[in-house]
Amino acid sequence: MRRVRHVVILAGGSGTRLWPASRRARPKQLLPIAPGGETLLGAAVRRATAVAGGRIAIVTAAELAEATRAIAPGVEILAEPVGRNTAPAIGLAAATIAARDPDAVLAILPADQHVTDEAGLQRVLERALAAVEERDAIGTIGITPTRAETGFGYLEVASAVPETVVEVLRFAEKPDRELAERYVASGRYLWNAGMFFASARRILAELDAHAPGIGRAVREIAAGTARIEDVYPAVPSISFDHAVMERVTHLVTVPAAVGWDDVGSWSALPALLGADEAGNTTSGAAIVHRGTGNIVSSDGDTLIAAVGVDDLVIVQSGDAILVVRREAAQDVREVVEILSRRGLTRYL
Amino acid sequence: MRRVRHVVILAGGSGTRLWPASRRARPKQLLPIAPGGETLLGAAVRRATAVAGGRIAIVTAAELAEATRAIAPGVEILAEPVGRNTAPAIGLAAATIAARDPDAVLAILPADQHVTDEAGLQRVLERALAAVEERDAIGTIGITPTRAETGFGYLEVASAVPETVVEVLRFAEKPDRELAERYVASGRYLWNAGMFFASARRILAELDAHAPGIGRAVREIAAGTARIEDVYPAVPSISFDHAVMERVTHLVTVPAAVGWDDVGSWSALPALLGADEAGNTTSGAAIVHRGTGNIVSSDGDTLIAAVGVDDLVIVQSGDAILVVRREAAQDVREVVEILSRRGLTRYL
Repeated sequence: MRRVRHVVILAGGSGTRLWPASRRARPKQLLPIAPGGETLLGAAVRRATAVAGGRIAIVTAAELAEATRAIAPGVEILAEPVGRNTAPAIGLAAATIAARDPDAVLAILPADQHVTDEAGLQRVLERALAAVEERDAIGTIGITPTRAETGFGYLEVASAVPETVVEVLRFAEKPDRELAERYVASGRYLWNAGMFFASARRILAELDAHAPGIGRAVREIAAGTARIEDVYPAVPSISFDHAVMERVTHLVTVPAAVGWDDVGSWSALPALLGADEAGNTTSGAAIVHRGTGNIVSSDGDTLIAAVGVDDLVIVQSGDAILVVRREAAQDVREVVEILSRRGLTRYL
Repeated sequence: MRRVRHVVILAGGSGTRLWPASRRARPKQLLPIAPGGETLLGAAVRRATAVAGGRIAIVTAAELAEATRAIAPGVEILAEPVGRNTAPAIGLAAATIAARDPDAVLAILPADQHVTDEAGLQRVLERALAAVEERDAIGTIGITPTRAETGFGYLEVASAVPETVVEVLRFAEKPDRELAERYVASGRYLWNAGMFFASARRILAELDAHAPGIGRAVREIAAGTARIEDVYPAVPSISFDHAVMERVTHLVTVPAAVGWDDVGSWSALPALLGADEAGNTTSGAAIVHRGTGNIVSSDGDTLIAAVGVDDLVIVQSGDAILVVRREAAQDVREVVEILSRRGLTRYL
């Protein structure tokens, strides 16, 4: 029996690392920053449609439901009253889908990824779904690293042949620079891209085994015996990696070299938009004069002129401007915290 | 006979080095950047009133006449159809005032200066006026240098006792860094601050001697025998320093230690506004996190967040943003040229 495939898109992130473009009311997946002005969520829905037709569910925050619906009209939206990280979000989707399609198999994909090789991604998604259907395993996709990235977790495998299913030997936490370089040099480590594949039944069984509070809550919500507003806020806030993936003994992955990147911070913009001959990436009205390695983005009519500066991120969006060193682009989260602490919530 | 004192304020500069705050329609003297939100021109008029009562004339560009009048209501405005540097501007003022008050003595002051010791400045202005009245000399004020500035010309004197009138031995052009350091170490060099003192009759006589085309044109304009639109565009564009001061044999100056600075570029902002304990100068809504030596200015509601950056100038004003290294703040002129060349005049 061929199982019915569904795609779950995780779109609950607040994306503070893309402030000031991303705001509470308009997080990064809703921003038109993919090539051609597509939103990241729009691109995710387009790819999901190729895998699962109309069987798509988006998990997002209740306050983003309307904006999400505007980008993905007709797609089922599962609205979380509060964010509780990915384990409850995936559990909610699995329980909801399993309630009407007990044999569903799920591809769970983040809303904020970017790939240059869309056809390659489709192939590895198909491969991963087929593998978990065949083996009743939990699967993931392992991205062939293109740099010694310290911002991702890694998957250790015995050998990493692109598009060839392989066992995951070990989940490795985000490494420091030196360790990341060793991982990449070894050829046996892949980026954990936050894509998960399994039957809905299997996901719920793993949650019951490793995070029973979450398993129980999402089943009650899906069965209609508890209101999401009542039980969801009380479930533990934990990632699916920590709650399930790191504790499961039999995991498979599909190594993929598809030009993948997450769009986790402004440093990812050159991967999306490219750079000019001086090494600057600009978007909107921007002029860089005598400078290299800058990422300069204005949201339209506002002009940014950068003169004699190198390796800066300069972003204007609406009523806020960020200037940060490119290698510290992650630190924008601290700005968001400062603004929050000082009561400057109008800029959040 | 005590001569009647007048103040002439030179307010014709375009101030491109303060872009994007200064624009063609709103040059720096019209910006509210003096402490307490006063405009530089407003501060200049206030000081002039203390010296000359209501006998003030402002020389400015015709297209700025209305905005200038709004800041200095009731003050006489001499509108230049085109900018021709300071020699014609001073000549125009001298001829216009001399036509109705032949014995007038003039203090000619720039509109874009800042002093921390206002009372001290009043004293040296009085001293300079008294000196030129007594000797029928041309006078200036020499600022006691507080740094080895390469952006100013210098006046060489035999000895520089503050507030004591002394002969100028030599005009020295803007020096390089090494020479500037020697000037400052010698104690015999003063900054040329662009303030001039002389009778109107004497100024016109010197123009007749050294720049006869200018002398003739401004007399004709003042006498009503030629229209300013017809003759002013044809006069040579030259500074009063080059045309007159460097060629006059008998010049006096009053050394002044009054916390003076010109407001020639964004690097001058800390002198106006001070700096916080981290060495950052901020104006408007601005946050600097882990950074020092930055000058950050927003024009109001727009928030600028600078993270982990040092020694940058970051300025937002209206629809434009400038980011430049602090030591290269003068280079903003190149941006203005680029915008002009690319036809992006809406940002000028």
